[in-house]
Amino acid sequence: MDEQGATDQRLGRRTFLKRAGMVGAALPMVGGLIAAACNQDKSTATPGPVDYRTPPPTTPTTAASSSPAATSTALSVADQIDADHKKGIADFLQNQQSPLTKGKGGQVLAPTIDNGVKVWNLTVDEVDWETFPGKTQKAFAYNKAVPGPIIRATEGDTVRINVKNNLTESTSIHWHGVLVPNNMDGVGFLTQDPIRPGASYTYEFPLRNPGTHMYHSHHNSMDQVNRGLLGAFIIEPKDNTSYPRYDREYVLVLNDSLLGFTINGKGFPATDALVAKKGERILIRFVNEGVMNHPMHLHGMPMQVFAKDGWMLTQPYLTDTIDIAPGNRYDTMIEANDVGLWAFHCHILSHAESPQGFFGLVTALVITA
Amino acid sequence: MDEQGATDQRLGRRTFLKRAGMVGAALPMVGGLIAAACNQDKSTATPGPVDYRTPPPTTPTTAASSSPAATSTALSVADQIDADHKKGIADFLQNQQSPLTKGKGGQVLAPTIDNGVKVWNLTVDEVDWETFPGKTQKAFAYNKAVPGPIIRATEGDTVRINVKNNLTESTSIHWHGVLVPNNMDGVGFLTQDPIRPGASYTYEFPLRNPGTHMYHSHHNSMDQVNRGLLGAFIIEPKDNTSYPRYDREYVLVLNDSLLGFTINGKGFPATDALVAKKGERILIRFVNEGVMNHPMHLHGMPMQVFAKDGWMLTQPYLTDTIDIAPGNRYDTMIEANDVGLWAFHCHILSHAESPQGFFGLVTALVITA
Amino acid sequence: MDEQGATDQRLGRRTFLKRAGMVGAALPMVGGLIAAACNQDKSTATPGPVDYRTPPPTTPTTAASSSPAATSTALSVADQIDADHKKGIADFLQNQQSPLTKGKGGQVLAPTIDNGVKVWNLTVDEVDWETFPGKTQKAFAYNKAVPGPIIRATEGDTVRINVKNNLTESTSIHWHGVLVPNNMDGVGFLTQDPIRPGASYTYEFPLRNPGTHMYHSHHNSMDQVNRGLLGAFIIEPKDNTSYPRYDREYVLVLNDSLLGFTINGKGFPATDALVAKKGERILIRFVNEGVMNHPMHLHGMPMQVFAKDGWMLTQPYLTDTIDIAPGNRYDTMIEANDVGLWAFHCHILSHAESPQGFFGLVTALVITA
Repeated sequence: MDEQGATDQRLGRRTFLKRAGMVGAALPMVGGLIAAACNQDKSTATPGPVDYRTPPPTTPTTAASSSPAATSTALSVADQIDADHKKGIADFLQNQQSPLTKGKGGQVLAPTIDNGVKVWNLTVDEVDWETFPGKTQKAFAYNKAVPGPIIRATEGDTVRINVKNNLTESTSIHWHGVLVPNNMDGVGFLTQDPIRPGASYTYEFPLRNPGTHMYHSHHNSMDQVNRGLLGAFIIEPKDNTSYPRYDREYVLVLNDSLLGFTINGKGFPATDALVAKKGERILIRFVNEGVMNHPMHLHGMPMQVFAKDGWMLTQPYLTDTIDIAPGNRYDTMIEANDVGLWAFHCHILSHAESPQGFFGLVTALVITA
Repeated sequence: MDEQGATDQRLGRRTFLKRAGMVGAALPMVGGLIAAACNQDKSTATPGPVDYRTPPPTTPTTAASSSPAATSTALSVADQIDADHKKGIADFLQNQQSPLTKGKGGQVLAPTIDNGVKVWNLTVDEVDWETFPGKTQKAFAYNKAVPGPIIRATEGDTVRINVKNNLTESTSIHWHGVLVPNNMDGVGFLTQDPIRPGASYTYEFPLRNPGTHMYHSHHNSMDQVNRGLLGAFIIEPKDNTSYPRYDREYVLVLNDSLLGFTINGKGFPATDALVAKKGERILIRFVNEGVMNHPMHLHGMPMQVFAKDGWMLTQPYLTDTIDIAPGNRYDTMIEANDVGLWAFHCHILSHAESPQGFFGLVTALVITA
Repeated sequence: MDEQGATDQRLGRRTFLKRAGMVGAALPMVGGLIAAACNQDKSTATPGPVDYRTPPPTTPTTAASSSPAATSTALSVADQIDADHKKGIADFLQNQQSPLTKGKGGQVLAPTIDNGVKVWNLTVDEVDWETFPGKTQKAFAYNKAVPGPIIRATEGDTVRINVKNNLTESTSIHWHGVLVPNNMDGVGFLTQDPIRPGASYTYEFPLRNPGTHMYHSHHNSMDQVNRGLLGAFIIEPKDNTSYPRYDREYVLVLNDSLLGFTINGKGFPATDALVAKKGERILIRFVNEGVMNHPMHLHGMPMQVFAKDGWMLTQPYLTDTIDIAPGNRYDTMIEANDVGLWAFHCHILSHAESPQGFFGLVTALVITA
């Protein structure tokens, strides 16, 4: 690992890849493209701290059929829009080298083993969570991160999750998509008494159905889930011979209300880019934990949708814009065939862009040669 | 029927099943699970009329790292949330034994036969409709219920529907999804003059395409449909050998605007539970009569989607959260494999839960041993 | 063409068909049905300019169980609703003969050929755009129309699009769904510097993937796309032997925000009807350029969905209401089996109807004998 870090120190590649939530597959050589992009950006920017809000002193291209005064004012607006957009992209690229926000959610948490049972400990806390640079909000979090840790196990495993509620209100956890016995289903007052402030509770069940699932509060959940009590729960198939082969994997947890529009707990420009090498197969697991549909659009190449809610489709299909409803998960595969910086965003444009530039549900897929 | 009623009087099983809109299949032995749930609930509640708004005098579990005063206030809020949620579940279970609201929509209405034609009479009235306990609103209704009666016939039948408009405004009926001659399509001023106040109109057509369809106003329809002029229209296939076998059937008509978030005209806790015995196959017909998408999430087991808008899918698929757009209908099958009380709700959480507990598009699937 | 025009002068058929954006297939004999509809309408309307806002002096049908006074007031409201609805339909039918609004978007633009490359020139302008009768708004437009011209070529072609930005702000064009080299992808500051006011820019790329695609601004796009910088980009397959046969084709570009609810840049009653002869196969290409889902409902007959985002489905399916998310395109086929005027509208009723009648995302499919 040290050598790898040394080969591309400027990019902080190891950090970048770790932050990107990569799973499995050999670490690739990333670097070039993002470096180029960042360098290019740097080379055109003013040295030192840049205040893009001040229009650059370049001579604007003449706009035909405008009076000089009108042109001047209009170009100021145009310059402002451009500067804001440019700063957003620069910040996003910077964020891939050195995170612009504190805190990192959605990390895989390794279980301990107790007599053959895989055990995770989750705390439920109120925390300060920075969704994008400078915007810190009160949030609820599992293990103090939004999303909570990725719980990852294999079909046939028995799992145990110990939950300690440090909130000042009750909570419970529902394992959305995971087939569990009714008394483990986590619905407050329907299948269990909620977990009182200060109290603990243990869930334990065997894993019967593989797939991309999720977990979240199911008590006062409109409030609690949207404050951050959510995470991904991935069950690998025991026999994965019929599961598509992939080189690289990303989990994208979408949310949209109390903490704003976020992918894995962060809004653009604080979102992580997805990186891959040309020729790789990239598994994307979409998880919608919000209250709105999000048609996620990948530029440059299609996604093959092959599983919905963890269930394999008999007829996978290709799409470039996948509409994901609240509660749904999709497993999709991308063939990384074209090198470049490919925008990847919700196509409800009001979730992704304003005159101040991109925000919210925006990231990029970076494919290197 | 009398003996069946006698065997489980405490549950009001006959009434419960009738209210649940069950169709076909032998009446099962329900009882145990709901009884247990209700008893359990009763056993933990204070005897006599319960005011859940008053925090119970139990000593709260200590919340770490809070000052005593802050804890006390915070726990009051927590207690309030818990009490409100608990009351909602208790009310819902109570509603299964004895309805908490007046009026019951979506009941199958048997036709009369006139020279081989199946005949229904529908009135269109302004009524008072109670969507959830204590909330009565002015509504428009077919045969004074929301939804209107289920019209159910068989492919190849000729049907006649006599409509009497008792409103003070004009109306018309569109048979959404049913293939009809153009002059029977019910679009005001496009295919017919609307039916004036006090006037009557007769629709008659042969049934060409089986499936789960619907009927609703198509004149001033944004207003009229959302006030309640809607119902399910089910056409059985003449040859049902290729239709999946099922033991039990529910029709869930969703709506979301002028009368609030409702399933079959009622919002939680006044919604009907769905009941089944372990091992049964349950057909759910979803009908979205609202103006919003509703991703309906069933806990505990997947739904197999096998028909859309009445047309059989060549490749059925499994899902636990089915996103239903306005105007769409889906036929889905559930294998009732796991005993318990399984929450069943829209996963746009703002349609289903507030700090005051569940409301709106929430019910439960109750599977008994 | 002259003879054809002469045979049906009253209908302005040539104009009608041209405006309807028809592509390919021999020009059919339309006429009868729309003529009948229009004539019928004329025969029932007052001669001369009609003010439908004044209730007609006809004696209303008596409404039972109302006091005379209440009835009188109530019927006035009813009459008003009816008159407004009737006027909307009359206007829509009139619009098919003689456009009620200025400007016509979404017309196929033939390329010039430069050394084997197909070349289009696009300007980007601020224009006045009339979305429905009397409602003119400031819009942004390609070649001064909303939507911009249909760009239509064949897989394997190389295309060049010269863009001249006449706005007072920067812009760029993204070829949504079209597989392009990264530097042609059109994302401001990510893949190119945006095109400054007064500047020009040239895109050039080979066409690798057939299908229904689109193009739109990808700089300040929430604002620019919704002001009208959008269009359809259709790539015919080089080998179309596996593409379904069709007799007639329509492209429906949906939008929903700054310019209101529009189909091809116009809201009902200024929308174009779709026309076909009984027995024809009609290809409908849906393109959602808005920020909301639109479940488009066709009365009378189902649509077979056979491609999504330009990719063929291995298992086409039938539907009568197709929920189209922002950024998605669907290719669907209709068998024009039933003669009549079939409503065709978004089933989110608030996008389609008010007490003042239909508006926005509403048109009709007219099938003649």
